[in-house]
Amino acid sequence: MLKKIVLALTCLVAFSFAESVGNVNLTKVMKVDRSLSPLAKKCVECHAEKTPGIVNDWKSSRHAHAGVSCMDCHAVPADSPMAIKKEHPKDSGNHVSILVSPKTCGKCHAKEVKEFEQSGHARGGVQMFAKKGMVELMYHYEGNGKPYENDAPFHAGDENLKDAPSATGCIQCHGLEIKLDKEGYPIPGKGWPNYGIGNAYPDGSVGSCKSCHSSHTFDMVEARKPSACASCHLGPDHPNIEIYNNSMHGKIYNAEGEKKWKWDSAPDTWDVPDYRAPTCATCHMSGIGDLNTTHNVSLRLKWNLWAPHSNLRTGGYETAADVYAKEGKVTVGVPLAGNPAGPEAARGEMKQVCKSCHSTKATESFFISADQHVMLYNTYHTEAKKMLDDLKAKKLLKKDEWSDAFQKVYYHLWHHEGRRMRMGAVMGAPDYAHWHGVFEVQQDIKELRNIYNARIKSGKIEE
Amino acid sequence: MLKKIVLALTCLVAFSFAESVGNVNLTKVMKVDRSLSPLAKKCVECHAEKTPGIVNDWKSSRHAHAGVSCMDCHAVPADSPMAIKKEHPKDSGNHVSILVSPKTCGKCHAKEVKEFEQSGHARGGVQMFAKKGMVELMYHYEGNGKPYENDAPFHAGDENLKDAPSATGCIQCHGLEIKLDKEGYPIPGKGWPNYGIGNAYPDGSVGSCKSCHSSHTFDMVEARKPSACASCHLGPDHPNIEIYNNSMHGKIYNAEGEKKWKWDSAPDTWDVPDYRAPTCATCHMSGIGDLNTTHNVSLRLKWNLWAPHSNLRTGGYETAADVYAKEGKVTVGVPLAGNPAGPEAARGEMKQVCKSCHSTKATESFFISADQHVMLYNTYHTEAKKMLDDLKAKKLLKKDEWSDAFQKVYYHLWHHEGRRMRMGAVMGAPDYAHWHGVFEVQQDIKELRNIYNARIKSGKIEE
Amino acid sequence: MLKKIVLALTCLVAFSFAESVGNVNLTKVMKVDRSLSPLAKKCVECHAEKTPGIVNDWKSSRHAHAGVSCMDCHAVPADSPMAIKKEHPKDSGNHVSILVSPKTCGKCHAKEVKEFEQSGHARGGVQMFAKKGMVELMYHYEGNGKPYENDAPFHAGDENLKDAPSATGCIQCHGLEIKLDKEGYPIPGKGWPNYGIGNAYPDGSVGSCKSCHSSHTFDMVEARKPSACASCHLGPDHPNIEIYNNSMHGKIYNAEGEKKWKWDSAPDTWDVPDYRAPTCATCHMSGIGDLNTTHNVSLRLKWNLWAPHSNLRTGGYETAADVYAKEGKVTVGVPLAGNPAGPEAARGEMKQVCKSCHSTKATESFFISADQHVMLYNTYHTEAKKMLDDLKAKKLLKKDEWSDAFQKVYYHLWHHEGRRMRMGAVMGAPDYAHWHGVFEVQQDIKELRNIYNARIKSGKIEE
Repeated sequence: MLKKIVLALTCLVAFSFAESVGNVNLTKVMKVDRSLSPLAKKCVECHAEKTPGIVNDWKSSRHAHAGVSCMDCHAVPADSPMAIKKEHPKDSGNHVSILVSPKTCGKCHAKEVKEFEQSGHARGGVQMFAKKGMVELMYHYEGNGKPYENDAPFHAGDENLKDAPSATGCIQCHGLEIKLDKEGYPIPGKGWPNYGIGNAYPDGSVGSCKSCHSSHTFDMVEARKPSACASCHLGPDHPNIEIYNNSMHGKIYNAEGEKKWKWDSAPDTWDVPDYRAPTCATCHMSGIGDLNTTHNVSLRLKWNLWAPHSNLRTGGYETAADVYAKEGKVTVGVPLAGNPAGPEAARGEMKQVCKSCHSTKATESFFISADQHVMLYNTYHTEAKKMLDDLKAKKLLKKDEWSDAFQKVYYHLWHHEGRRMRMGAVMGAPDYAHWHGVFEVQQDIKELRNIYNARIKSGKIEE
Repeated sequence: MLKKIVLALTCLVAFSFAESVGNVNLTKVMKVDRSLSPLAKKCVECHAEKTPGIVNDWKSSRHAHAGVSCMDCHAVPADSPMAIKKEHPKDSGNHVSILVSPKTCGKCHAKEVKEFEQSGHARGGVQMFAKKGMVELMYHYEGNGKPYENDAPFHAGDENLKDAPSATGCIQCHGLEIKLDKEGYPIPGKGWPNYGIGNAYPDGSVGSCKSCHSSHTFDMVEARKPSACASCHLGPDHPNIEIYNNSMHGKIYNAEGEKKWKWDSAPDTWDVPDYRAPTCATCHMSGIGDLNTTHNVSLRLKWNLWAPHSNLRTGGYETAADVYAKEGKVTVGVPLAGNPAGPEAARGEMKQVCKSCHSTKATESFFISADQHVMLYNTYHTEAKKMLDDLKAKKLLKKDEWSDAFQKVYYHLWHHEGRRMRMGAVMGAPDYAHWHGVFEVQQDIKELRNIYNARIKSGKIEE
Repeated sequence: MLKKIVLALTCLVAFSFAESVGNVNLTKVMKVDRSLSPLAKKCVECHAEKTPGIVNDWKSSRHAHAGVSCMDCHAVPADSPMAIKKEHPKDSGNHVSILVSPKTCGKCHAKEVKEFEQSGHARGGVQMFAKKGMVELMYHYEGNGKPYENDAPFHAGDENLKDAPSATGCIQCHGLEIKLDKEGYPIPGKGWPNYGIGNAYPDGSVGSCKSCHSSHTFDMVEARKPSACASCHLGPDHPNIEIYNNSMHGKIYNAEGEKKWKWDSAPDTWDVPDYRAPTCATCHMSGIGDLNTTHNVSLRLKWNLWAPHSNLRTGGYETAADVYAKEGKVTVGVPLAGNPAGPEAARGEMKQVCKSCHSTKATESFFISADQHVMLYNTYHTEAKKMLDDLKAKKLLKKDEWSDAFQKVYYHLWHHEGRRMRMGAVMGAPDYAHWHGVFEVQQDIKELRNIYNARIKSGKIEE
């Protein structure tokens, strides 16, 4: 009994303590006494209170260690197309941009930015806006531009909901052509803030380093983890993180990677035996033995497996970023961008990665089956496309793609099931090559044939 | 050759050792000599052999450190509605309950229990049983109440299978109105044991602390991890863990959280820089800067995004737990429960969390798009509901919802696709806002229109 | 300004360094001076350069510690059915096999291999090839055996794509009857390399130890992790890793397992309190208290939940591996293989696992509901099968299963939805028991009834 009273008292004390601590701001004002400029010190000291998360990130970054401050990335000339119009801090004569573009990162990391710009990643945003069809796909909004009455009291100003699907969806991964308002801030509600890989900036540069090296630590280790790719490369249309987890590589990483592997080797030195199985970055970017590190993720790819029909990557380097920088124009870029030495050279580089751990025989045999699965997909797609074209010629397609059974299945065949079939095969993920892949593609093609035959026979579109 | 013989002998020895160890019980009887009552010591010593997992959990808990014993939670008066009728241990004069309710936890953790009871979590169980429609949805069983002959020999006593879907499904997350048999044990086969958040106990209390702080460690750290929420908040109807993993927050946690973050800060003191990105608990419960810690997960929510139509949370505190305690009645509670200061105050608190790491501009712009996506969903739902009501009025709906194409698509539109669209947007998960969300909602609405138009035109329900 | 110049110079130096390091092979030639045979030393020293991943794996293995070398597993007599014809290394008089079968592992790990062969795992590969229906299901290829013209230039030799689905899919988990070419290498493009659990080897042995203990560490710890099972037990047809993550067991593991649990206890001694919740291996294989460790994963199973109809496991030990060893014949094995003492003995062993942490009452009550859910599934399946048989008798089924709405839904009912319903229930995963399970099974049965009634009424198959 006595014990219980003591316990109760103890708890009361604990409550009071917790209560008081809860109302006390534990974040102290940070005093910085290092080789930073006076203005840079002011950034840090003030933001340590205002946005402690940002300053704490920076504190644990290599940037802080090397004396790279807020100013080095955010300060811009007053007349920069990136500049916020008002001085910041107030009356300092200094101007900052809320955006930091690859151009800024490239001041120190020129090689990485250049390689990135030559990769398919750099095409992610501009391509989407250049292709009218893709933009329309994004804009699902069909209303009259005004919210229904029952929402009106709360959001009288929201006369326009049509940007929501792209702003919360596509742009978050693909990126945005960022436009600033008169004060120098990104126009709200259009898709900023985002971590899209292919943002196009007012300074003409394209890309987003923080998609993989998230702000404000910009960590190398983070980008080496499978999770770095997982926030975009997932889901029904390119389940790459699921594919990785399904593979033996992912299985080994999941069993021991976090605990046992060496993640912080210097750039270009991360190699066996730092890890026992590759992550996404290992195969697509890392230096392995004689193979150079690259930020061009397209360099080791033989096929363009995202496309309706798998074609060999014969397009050389990507050019969309260059065009945007020079002409300020959004373009579809080079859909067949890959290795300038051609698709077999690309594959050869990939095999170099495999052979660090696998015999030549195993490596060759693996790719024979993977390529056959890709080509098998092509046979399905060729037939599907032929039927689609024929129905189009005969005016047996509905105008609205998403109300037309044939067009809906066709879209899923290539964009969802077909990508899974192909990507599952080349990355060693049987569940995606088969159950989420060919098993569904096969059923799709039968359904397409069924609809096609009925339309051809009857000469009209079914209700 | 000699080496191989030595190796073989070594292996043989290893086998024999393993074999013998395998049959030896390695768990020693535990002797406890601490400030526990004699009965409490007996619990520990006996259960260390009978259920070593439970005792080992307790050993590593703060409860054990503070001298809180089995007795403090399980001992009840003989006439308690929770009591097992037989004395335990035998002839001890002591009574225990196999259940421990929030009322018991509240003896020490009063503030947390109170806050919990004011949250939507507290409504999870009773609401389900109060809403007849929801109960019927759970009871999928359509048989004659008897297993088919080929199973009969093995399960002669199982004349009733209809409880299985709720017992293995809904109740496991939502909770159960727990009834005891004459001996004082929960009636078997009705949904106990479970970790449902909204259990209603014979002592009148509602909730389940161990849903997040699992028995018998009742750990604070566990509840701070995303996994704490993941065993219920997943799947087609509210894929919150998938949404988290899709977001930049989850990406950062997955890259470094387990290894680098500080998880065991005292209550109310877990804040930046202990972590670099929020978990579920951070945004919905944690004290951040001036914002107080709360166990009311509804307090920072503006919308009720689980509902068919998204409405603002204007209902104040949840009351279902109160009603159950006072009247023993299961009620639907307050579907619009939220922050008593209103939905904008709720949103304001949430923004306080964001602003620890994000600029005001970024925070505001994020929520503009998120809210627009929620309202865009509402425009779809409004149209769908109007068609549903019209068909109902015109007697063009089948009685069995699950055989009626229109009703099935309508259900999926709001309960599955529509929740994903909305929750994906407000939690920064583009794949859920788009591919699992609006992309499917858009196709749903077209399918609904198609069925609607056909029924209206023909005046009958299609075969 | 000066600071910026210094910074730029620092970066330049860093670049040059990185550049030069990138082209230097950091892997030194390994000199081994241990109690290995001269040939074994040669393996290690040469492969340390050729396939550093393999050698580094071996270095961190117990094998290396115990002096088990490459030779002990890969060296075979020249006339072995597993031998590569050419000597290796060149002119050494030594022969190796690129394959290592369970027969080789069994030289030291005889008990484990024996137990494995008595389990359903051993049936995974041969059963698939013995059942003609299953093989046909795998061969989705419908083309004319030749790739379409537009691929021809690149793959003139690929006249045969029909193996791709099994090679990239089924075989990767189930295994392959491995045939060697004239040189002693596995025939390329047929499904090797794989990690399939049921490979059948030219030496007559069946199975794959490395499916769970991946090469070349063959780690015990790896196989104790849930990820060990996750590369095969996932997806629409047996989402066991998803089920585990949905369960309280998985939730606890995900919160703390990696960081806090003891994973490297010696064989047969891994028990509470090394872990706070079970992994897959714990329940299905581990020694717990008086219960023996086993590599027969079928030993604790009451039901065969993978089958169209759930039956009790009354078949005793699996025999497919024995038959293959003696007769070289692929057989379907014993679909009801389980515990030779019968299904209730199997369940009894499983309950012993549960009771380490759960009360007898909770354990019993859990299985009552789980079994009821399994039997409830059987009532659905019995009805579906009866309709299927009736339609077959009345010639109201299409010949092509995958073009026939009834047969497609029937397949999904048992192979996908029905497994999820049952496995979700017995492993404590409400989302799979319900949303991915009975919720869909219920809709399937209504759809089947609808099609059935229409066909019976009209006497023909719908278009």
